[in-house]
Amino acid sequence: MTGGDSILGLDIGGTKLAAGVLAPDASLLGWQVGPSSADGPDAVIERLIALARQGVADSGVGWEKIEAIGVGVGGPLDAERGVVLNPPNLPGWQDVHLGALLEAALRRPIAMDNDANAAVLGEHRFGAGRGTRNMVYLTISTGIGGGVIEDGCLLRGATGNAAEIGHMSLCYDGWPCVCGGRGCLEAFASGTNIARRYREAGGAPGATAKDVAERAAAGDALASRAWDDTTEVLGAAIASAINLFDPEIVVLGGGVTGAGEMLFEPVRRIARSRVLRRAAAAVPIVPSALGTQLGVYGAAAVALEARGKR
Amino acid sequence: MTGGDSILGLDIGGTKLAAGVLAPDASLLGWQVGPSSADGPDAVIERLIALARQGVADSGVGWEKIEAIGVGVGGPLDAERGVVLNPPNLPGWQDVHLGALLEAALRRPIAMDNDANAAVLGEHRFGAGRGTRNMVYLTISTGIGGGVIEDGCLLRGATGNAAEIGHMSLCYDGWPCVCGGRGCLEAFASGTNIARRYREAGGAPGATAKDVAERAAAGDALASRAWDDTTEVLGAAIASAINLFDPEIVVLGGGVTGAGEMLFEPVRRIARSRVLRRAAAAVPIVPSALGTQLGVYGAAAVALEARGKR
Repeated sequence: MTGGDSILGLDIGGTKLAAGVLAPDASLLGWQVGPSSADGPDAVIERLIALARQGVADSGVGWEKIEAIGVGVGGPLDAERGVVLNPPNLPGWQDVHLGALLEAALRRPIAMDNDANAAVLGEHRFGAGRGTRNMVYLTISTGIGGGVIEDGCLLRGATGNAAEIGHMSLCYDGWPCVCGGRGCLEAFASGTNIARRYREAGGAPGATAKDVAERAAAGDALASRAWDDTTEVLGAAIASAINLFDPEIVVLGGGVTGAGEMLFEPVRRIARSRVLRRAAAAVPIVPSALGTQLGVYGAAAVALEARGKR
Repeated sequence: MTGGDSILGLDIGGTKLAAGVLAPDASLLGWQVGPSSADGPDAVIERLIALARQGVADSGVGWEKIEAIGVGVGGPLDAERGVVLNPPNLPGWQDVHLGALLEAALRRPIAMDNDANAAVLGEHRFGAGRGTRNMVYLTISTGIGGGVIEDGCLLRGATGNAAEIGHMSLCYDGWPCVCGGRGCLEAFASGTNIARRYREAGGAPGATAKDVAERAAAGDALASRAWDDTTEVLGAAIASAINLFDPEIVVLGGGVTGAGEMLFEPVRRIARSRVLRRAAAAVPIVPSALGTQLGVYGAAAVALEARGKR
């Protein structure tokens, strides 16, 4: 960061909102979390603005020191114009001029990006990818999202839709995916799909991915099978991602990584046994370092990246 | 290109050498081809220098107009220092200071890159990818090489080894690859492996990928099966590559693409049916436009890219 100014980060998720102030020393001050809701955009944006004001007040940073506002929100969106189009995780949002509404209320320049890009930028600037120029990031959660930093910048592609690692096919004639493809990583190894495979194999009804991990750790055969299949496919996917993006580091975040070494140990072993270049076996595969604050760090990173472009 | 100066392009392949002069209007003048050989680097470099001199003489461009020399050569290499390390397709080459040798003989600044990167740069600047900022390129030949242009620049990754699309796994528990992975695109759909699968399925001994394509076109059932499997896996791989790199165009080159629409029609259909975003179904999937001159165009593009960085 240049000078002594701070950034307000705002994170709009399907179930929660968060706000916080990123200080010049990269500490996060006045962090606030509140529920999102299905009440539609007006109520949610009103609550977000209140949360933002509370965050700045609690941070002890005066408003005059807030240089810009970064926002992470579910895509698809038109980031240039600050319009949220119709995100599947925000029912009722349709062509919402979020940027203009926030700028009118908070009177600071707004930079927006989708939550996946925000997460990658946050983890790269402030988390496990700090100091690297080339990074692959995967969120393994309800779905699987990806992001890639190439030579210090977010890999965006022609239309801003690059790095959809969740929709890389690991089995060209295999399981169907909602996207129309077959064998997509997400359709096998996301939290939702880990649980579904376990239940379909005869596991306990209502079991979640966390339950599968816990039962596998306790020696349950069905759960172990579902878990081992997960780490096999994830490891293969990460090996491919290393061959494709040649990163210095691979960072994994999202709820499923809460399983810790039970996930990381086999995924590292499998990925390393499969990479093309022997040297790539040394690429660290590590957990996200920002945890629940990643959304706000990411939102702030969006504003910093926008500033870098000006 | 700036000013009125020309670039000498030199292409060192496992079976042939080529040289030519890229004029300011992007025409290729004085194109020369000669055999490479297994005689080792000294003889090959001597022949290359003779070919370069012949190319410049035939081009009608005076040496004083040759601003720089670009070289494409089999990797791995240390492009910064101009050293060819130990390329598998150039037996006997081991830590050859090619850059210094060429510079001493031809007295122009040398820029080197591996042949895969050179091909992508050439196809992007002068071929089917001209005018785009985001492109995926695949050579489907003895092996399968890949290259990606992201926002106008070659995607290099941390160590210059990104875009190994031939080693993306399309079948996590499938066929073994020499790299140690399983289900790699190259180990299924390269020319060598198309022919191998056909022969192993009971096809004619000695058949090549070209034979498989011709027999499939003539209605032979075994050959049709081998060919259909090829286009299925290639189509799935290209869909994944579109999801990962979000290109404006996908360009396919290499000997196997000589099969023409018999390859492109099914590959387009399959890739388009599998991409994540509907809009991506409109991404053109087209043949390389430079044919046998791609190596020299690519070598010249390496020199132009190096100049852009200075």
